[in-house]
Amino acid sequence: MRLKYYPYTLELKHTFTVSSNSRTSTPVVLTEIEHNGVTGYGEASMPPYLGESHDSVMNFLSRINLEKFNDPFELENILTEVDRSASGNNAAKASVDIALHDLVGKLLGKPWFKLWGYCKDSTPYTSFTIGIDKPEVMREKVREAEGFKFLKIKAGTENDKENLEAIRSETGVPIFVDANQGWKNKEYALELIYWLKEKNVLLIEQPFPKERIEDTAWLTERSPLPIIADEAVRRLEDVIKAKDVYSGINIKLMKSTGMREAHKMITLAKAFNMKIMIGCMTETSCAISAAAQLSPLADWADLDGALLIKNDLFTGVKIENGKIILNDIPGIGISKK
Amino acid sequence: MRLKYYPYTLELKHTFTVSSNSRTSTPVVLTEIEHNGVTGYGEASMPPYLGESHDSVMNFLSRINLEKFNDPFELENILTEVDRSASGNNAAKASVDIALHDLVGKLLGKPWFKLWGYCKDSTPYTSFTIGIDKPEVMREKVREAEGFKFLKIKAGTENDKENLEAIRSETGVPIFVDANQGWKNKEYALELIYWLKEKNVLLIEQPFPKERIEDTAWLTERSPLPIIADEAVRRLEDVIKAKDVYSGINIKLMKSTGMREAHKMITLAKAFNMKIMIGCMTETSCAISAAAQLSPLADWADLDGALLIKNDLFTGVKIENGKIILNDIPGIGISKK
Repeated sequence: MRLKYYPYTLELKHTFTVSSNSRTSTPVVLTEIEHNGVTGYGEASMPPYLGESHDSVMNFLSRINLEKFNDPFELENILTEVDRSASGNNAAKASVDIALHDLVGKLLGKPWFKLWGYCKDSTPYTSFTIGIDKPEVMREKVREAEGFKFLKIKAGTENDKENLEAIRSETGVPIFVDANQGWKNKEYALELIYWLKEKNVLLIEQPFPKERIEDTAWLTERSPLPIIADEAVRRLEDVIKAKDVYSGINIKLMKSTGMREAHKMITLAKAFNMKIMIGCMTETSCAISAAAQLSPLADWADLDGALLIKNDLFTGVKIENGKIILNDIPGIGISKK
Repeated sequence: MRLKYYPYTLELKHTFTVSSNSRTSTPVVLTEIEHNGVTGYGEASMPPYLGESHDSVMNFLSRINLEKFNDPFELENILTEVDRSASGNNAAKASVDIALHDLVGKLLGKPWFKLWGYCKDSTPYTSFTIGIDKPEVMREKVREAEGFKFLKIKAGTENDKENLEAIRSETGVPIFVDANQGWKNKEYALELIYWLKEKNVLLIEQPFPKERIEDTAWLTERSPLPIIADEAVRRLEDVIKAKDVYSGINIKLMKSTGMREAHKMITLAKAFNMKIMIGCMTETSCAISAAAQLSPLADWADLDGALLIKNDLFTGVKIENGKIILNDIPGIGISKK
């Protein structure tokens, strides 16, 4: 097997703001694994706050040697070796995992949701994220998001209530609130969640900094809405730590090192009776379609990443009136534009 | 899809004795699921102490309607419905799960160890079980088991030390000791385990009745050998209960309801850093070969079930000098004799 990769920069349609930063582009690295004339595609997306970059991913991939593996089906062995080659580098690892899954699915002639035994029709509706901005800009974005069954709003600033009211002045659709670790006081958070519930908010993501385990468990126990871990849960071992602290987990391929570990995380979380959200970074339809293969298992999805960019390189899984539409294309369900 | 099934009785080469009973045959039910001219084979094995029988399995299967499912790939939906159709009936459920896996693997043209991403060569050596008997008979059985790298001895009687000495007079190979819930006193058990360790015993299965959780956790904490759950762990939810009580789990398809849940159990147990044994009942090469697909994930195997019977109906996964030898036959790796 041969691994190729090249850097690319996603241009965002709108400046994207979370509680910690703003940006207009996202660096990604695209991978290809070729075996007997068949090519699998993968992707690493590196929003700056996660600590990876074009340089770090290219450097990680330059040290991966897949030529010694003759059988792409040995996913467990290959991906374990990739994982052990360096700590961290989760997005870089995901780019190998996704390309290998795409390759193996193509060799089997089936998409992964099917190889895993899941049903095409049981995909959830994705939310569409409204970044933090001036109220009039947020209202405009909400109008653009017409047709989506769920919106997601970033919170964790001083203006959480105002921002939500700005959206509510345009629409009554259910909302996911992502605090991105931005809340500080647990009593304030609980009171705010009761207020948000009245405004048809469905869930809260990552209310406190991930280190504040006791406060989070306190909140989860009392909250009338599910509390979902995002920054607190990257990989499999974190799911065990999140049990009894959060109501559910937001799984993203760029955190989990790819599809294989993400699937294991879902098995664990479901055994713990935790809720599953499948999320993303800003990504092309490559990584989004890979994540969508897992979406029949999710209670909620936030897979709008490819809708937020101007220069997608792939066509893949579609979003129609907010619903994730899987296709029958083997592998991760994509073709190059 | 159409489900067919028929009863069969396995004749044992030797009378088989555990701490609770003796027998010379085992009832099984063989299943077939047909779809577009391709047939998948499955099996339920019903050792009497597990509470299933020819009648109960045939009755369960008579109420399963697979004709409404057009796509055998929808394993999760189909098997969830089979599971919900009645409580218990784990072997009956396994017989549907195994046949469906055999069918889907055949439709994909690959064996399941490969579809799951595991490596053919990383299978363990299986143990060979020496039933409890008169010392001279046990010594004879040990001589017949020459070539096996591990033996398994049933314990939990008054004569555990004598039985072990009888085996040790013939061979020095490492031994798994399965107490089948037969031990009573925890201090005695700990002392015995220290003695057994000196005799090259590698692990202890199910020392106490499964309800004695505190005594088992006490023993596991102090034992110089790993303590493996058997009767205490049937299904996925039991793995969570076994964490911090046992060092590992013995997974058997007839307990787990089949391959799909067994695979999930392994994912969970590995995330908990628990050891994995893959075991069996007396079964034909059908169910044994199905279990063997999971064996690359196991620390230890006890898959001698088909070697103990006179009238196997299938050829499948082989045992060569004790090692489990997977083949490349699609599905569960079997053909009808």
